[in-house]
Amino acid sequence: MSQPKLLHYTLDPTSRLVRLMCAEYGVDVELVHIKAWRREPDFLEVNPSGDVPVLHVDDQLTLVGASAVIYFVEEQFGAQPVLLPTDPIGRAETRRLVDWTLNKLADDVTRYIVEEKYIKNDLPGGTPDTSVLRAARANLTEHLTYFNYLLATRRWLAGDEMTLADFALAAQISTLDYLSEMPWDTVPEVKDWYQRLKSRPAFRTLLLDRVVGMPASANYADLDF
Amino acid sequence: MSQPKLLHYTLDPTSRLVRLMCAEYGVDVELVHIKAWRREPDFLEVNPSGDVPVLHVDDQLTLVGASAVIYFVEEQFGAQPVLLPTDPIGRAETRRLVDWTLNKLADDVTRYIVEEKYIKNDLPGGTPDTSVLRAARANLTEHLTYFNYLLATRRWLAGDEMTLADFALAAQISTLDYLSEMPWDTVPEVKDWYQRLKSRPAFRTLLLDRVVGMPASANYADLDF
Repeated sequence: MSQPKLLHYTLDPTSRLVRLMCAEYGVDVELVHIKAWRREPDFLEVNPSGDVPVLHVDDQLTLVGASAVIYFVEEQFGAQPVLLPTDPIGRAETRRLVDWTLNKLADDVTRYIVEEKYIKNDLPGGTPDTSVLRAARANLTEHLTYFNYLLATRRWLAGDEMTLADFALAAQISTLDYLSEMPWDTVPEVKDWYQRLKSRPAFRTLLLDRVVGMPASANYADLDF
Repeated sequence: MSQPKLLHYTLDPTSRLVRLMCAEYGVDVELVHIKAWRREPDFLEVNPSGDVPVLHVDDQLTLVGASAVIYFVEEQFGAQPVLLPTDPIGRAETRRLVDWTLNKLADDVTRYIVEEKYIKNDLPGGTPDTSVLRAARANLTEHLTYFNYLLATRRWLAGDEMTLADFALAAQISTLDYLSEMPWDTVPEVKDWYQRLKSRPAFRTLLLDRVVGMPASANYADLDF
């Protein structure tokens, strides 16, 4: 297999999830930064839905769509132990929380914050809409309260073992943290959990990220924050 | 295994997908109608995200979240031939289109139409917002154009074989069709494909649905429309 190529942009949380998975599985991926929001015709031809991640595995195989990419990586690159549990109950709980994270948390919170604080920088006359940011932050509080509650009773998000659900949530949180949007002091269980994840070698790929003209939050790359 | 119990409401497209899958796999499911949008505390305790489908498999196992339910049904109830292809390329294309359908099509179109025309009937003073319906219909045209294009070159949505992607899209379309929102004459390839699916025995479960006080479109249950 030639080296896979990931079309992504730095703060896209789902691309970050794919990067985390590949790093965890020891698969070296070439990263190609693409301003997906510009909806260039060349890119739309590759992915009519116009979003990242897109994974080129080889000339014959291009994967588009979050689940397509994520579960391909899980099934084809996944070593033991795998991130998707093998028992039906663990699988279901993992998928429930992956869904929650990739759809609800992303749709209620992360995409607005990324749009307002990051993408709008690239658009003519784009300035963040504070009312949108305020709504996203209120939604974030609700989501974090739930995750904090789960993590008060479980070592990892979906149970006793680390799963894809942990990586999915950590990827979203890493984007929010970069943009100084994580109210760490209010969610100690989430903070403790994130600290454990952050110190995994796979996480280094994200912690080295830098967006030109937009420094990360002060403790973004600190393992002890 | 005792008889599984599906919490759903009649026109919820994701619940319809689960019903189609169970019917295709010959699994008899008890249907329990629930007005999920009322967000009753008892139901939120079962599913904090407050949506259907929820599948009670037995006392030990309750599945919530679209992917959790769907892939559980696929993995545990699925006979040969399965709806998720075994080859990596077919799997990825199927997941791409399932994602598209369950997230984009549902979020751009179906949930608005269901909210305005169906759920609002249950809310005090709820009348459909015509500007929302207009926007949803415009989005629907774009989505259908893409699916019509795909189906002009493929027998089934994801390729040569019928997959979960076909069921996922058909479930959404069956809801739109019930509510007289399918512009059949403009998308002949989609119509031809839907006709093939509609004549499968699994589809009967949906075609018998009736919502009190809200008759289905004239040809909703016709196999030749």
